[in-house]
Amino acid sequence: MDAHTAKPSPELPHVVIVGCGFGGLEATKVFEGAPVRVTLLDRSNHHLFQPLLYQVATAGLSAPAIAAPIRHMRRHQRNLTVLMADVVAIDKARREVRLADGQAIPYDQLIVAAGATHSYFGNDQWQEHAPGLKTLADAFTLRARLLSAFERAETLPDDASRAPWLNFVVIGGGPTGVEMAGTLAEIARHTLRDEFRRIDPGRAQVLLVEGSERILAAFKPEQSAQAKAQLERLGVQVRVGCRVVGIDEAGVDLQTADGGRERIAARTKVWAAGVAASPLARTLDVPLDRAGRVIVDEHMNIPGHAEVYVVGDMAAATSLEKDGTRKPVPGVSPGAKQAGRHAARQILARMNGRAEPPFRYRDYGNLATIGRKAAVADLGSIQFSGFAAWLFWLFVHVYFLIGFRNRVRVFADWAWAYFTFQRHARIVVEPKGGLRQDEA
Amino acid sequence: MDAHTAKPSPELPHVVIVGCGFGGLEATKVFEGAPVRVTLLDRSNHHLFQPLLYQVATAGLSAPAIAAPIRHMRRHQRNLTVLMADVVAIDKARREVRLADGQAIPYDQLIVAAGATHSYFGNDQWQEHAPGLKTLADAFTLRARLLSAFERAETLPDDASRAPWLNFVVIGGGPTGVEMAGTLAEIARHTLRDEFRRIDPGRAQVLLVEGSERILAAFKPEQSAQAKAQLERLGVQVRVGCRVVGIDEAGVDLQTADGGRERIAARTKVWAAGVAASPLARTLDVPLDRAGRVIVDEHMNIPGHAEVYVVGDMAAATSLEKDGTRKPVPGVSPGAKQAGRHAARQILARMNGRAEPPFRYRDYGNLATIGRKAAVADLGSIQFSGFAAWLFWLFVHVYFLIGFRNRVRVFADWAWAYFTFQRHARIVVEPKGGLRQDEA
Repeated sequence: MDAHTAKPSPELPHVVIVGCGFGGLEATKVFEGAPVRVTLLDRSNHHLFQPLLYQVATAGLSAPAIAAPIRHMRRHQRNLTVLMADVVAIDKARREVRLADGQAIPYDQLIVAAGATHSYFGNDQWQEHAPGLKTLADAFTLRARLLSAFERAETLPDDASRAPWLNFVVIGGGPTGVEMAGTLAEIARHTLRDEFRRIDPGRAQVLLVEGSERILAAFKPEQSAQAKAQLERLGVQVRVGCRVVGIDEAGVDLQTADGGRERIAARTKVWAAGVAASPLARTLDVPLDRAGRVIVDEHMNIPGHAEVYVVGDMAAATSLEKDGTRKPVPGVSPGAKQAGRHAARQILARMNGRAEPPFRYRDYGNLATIGRKAAVADLGSIQFSGFAAWLFWLFVHVYFLIGFRNRVRVFADWAWAYFTFQRHARIVVEPKGGLRQDEA
Repeated sequence: MDAHTAKPSPELPHVVIVGCGFGGLEATKVFEGAPVRVTLLDRSNHHLFQPLLYQVATAGLSAPAIAAPIRHMRRHQRNLTVLMADVVAIDKARREVRLADGQAIPYDQLIVAAGATHSYFGNDQWQEHAPGLKTLADAFTLRARLLSAFERAETLPDDASRAPWLNFVVIGGGPTGVEMAGTLAEIARHTLRDEFRRIDPGRAQVLLVEGSERILAAFKPEQSAQAKAQLERLGVQVRVGCRVVGIDEAGVDLQTADGGRERIAARTKVWAAGVAASPLARTLDVPLDRAGRVIVDEHMNIPGHAEVYVVGDMAAATSLEKDGTRKPVPGVSPGAKQAGRHAARQILARMNGRAEPPFRYRDYGNLATIGRKAAVADLGSIQFSGFAAWLFWLFVHVYFLIGFRNRVRVFADWAWAYFTFQRHARIVVEPKGGLRQDEA
């Protein structure tokens, strides 16, 4: 019986990991074969490859292509117990996490990686009209609404009643908003061509609204401009310096840069503007930043609790640069992965009376896709855009996708989509979900 | 401009088809290129290959593998308009169908193919505890419940509390019930093996309950016995002559053949027992049979209305046999397809002053799969079971699956599943859908 397959003894330290996104999953892997018992808790049964979630929302990929059951992925890790459970609170004093069903799970070491959720900046009533994109359920909701909007327009008797169903507003010009807007334009102009008899889907309007002065603010200004030009070539209207001040069922109210107001009649809205840390952060009773993220130290610890780590989108972490300055760690998957690994390694190091060097974020650059053959890449020393960036984006995403088979599947789906313009997952699962037939 | 691509003139007769299952889809195809305008109405945007729906419910296939957008499938049929709309009533006198949104669509000729729904024999309160399997939404509900039951058991502290989550009851011993029970046993014994730490999924109990004296009543008695033996080899308990008299959240009450009562504690129940025709049948105001099906004549017409046809699971149709006797048409996909084709051809024949010969059902036999390498086939002159029947079943289903690409995809998924015992679609989309964490 070797160490790898031996059942861990109950006397080993118990590491609890909350959340199996990129941060939690990477932390879990570090403990493989280590003399600890690990319990990984997630509200869902799958790890989700979130960078491709917009492809599920836009019918390009099916859900299983980007999601894999956690316990299947980690079945060989004998010191790991995976529990599908909803953690509702963390009790630092008693060193336990509390589940929605009332159970409490004690820990010796805790890594919290519960991610982020949408933020509507205090306008929670906007949520039902402009859903966001964080989970597979969100993606199915959006997919049903996008596809049903075209279906609904086809059933209506005249152009005036059809128009609001053929207007799509994407709110937020970050990578998700840009991907959604570009793909929506592609669907309208290519995928659905020749399939309708009463409407011309190519006449659908896709509007991307960004409050700041440029889209893709994490990129260099020239690249933002390139991305805007590429989106416009795809048929997307890009409005920068334009704030959303109201969202209801029938449309969106905008405040333009010059302070004017504008009303857009649009049945379908997508929220890609704001995120906030998981509400679990508040139960830690420690200082949070404005986005509700936990302010952590150079080892991802919370103040006064070297046994509690917070990583990923839930944490406001800094990286110690070579010049001694501290830079915020961006809320992207490499940041979450590196922080998760750091926390896990620090736990193991401390068990041996050592310590890791302070966390340093390794920045591989920024990458955003816009649509068919269009993307922007900023690798620090080199920036490029267009088809080359799109190929690079494709390669990176397929490469990092979890599980060999998913990679093959996603690649096959994309090759098919590229040559045929078709999207194989154009399925509205809940017939009434996006249709709202009883309404005007 | 040739006849095939010309826009149909509004003076052409208007054929309305309600429902795009096997019957409605086949009828639609017959009208390709014919001098009619066709409007096809369906509540969903996709045609569903229902014989493989249980594979979606049991995580073997993703939804897009067995569902295709109707308007994409028929995009080349220029005389066809597809509308995603919910038909709520048929007005024979005014010759129009009414939609949920209040619109009325007039017809010259009408083919109603709205299918069937679950019947709980007057116990509609059973539905939430024992969902059935007719739509993709049903399949997702079942998938979430099946997978979440194992997840829930893993979170519980002792065998007594876990047991009800590891008991699965399938109600109804027809093809769907047999497929579900066999696949569930395979999941418990093979797919999930070695992935749990606290429970042994292989100890899950799968119970198949059938009210009559044998399962697969459409087959010969020897084949029912073979199917029962194959199920038992897979680990399924088969109970025949056993009626369900109660279903609640925590379990099922049975009445055994000798009149005794038995209570089974089981959190997960699947309803595969009863179907009833679409409630749309009642709005036709014509004689119905006990299952709510419309009694139609030898051309699928309702009494006194040669312009109204009902086909598929909604119709109680008979076949004129060679010996002059009439036999009921079984509620299987070949029956619906043949009846749909017959109705459409009869419409075209009557437009030319002719008539089709009375409907004769061509019976290709019966086929039911049980699980890995197990099936039964009855081709009339020949009966076989086991591995050969399973290979035959596989071939037939992949062959008939709509769309070349879906065939390749399904075949690849199955080849993978066969050699690895894995099921790629093990995704619980709504984390709380099947889990009910707040309950005991």
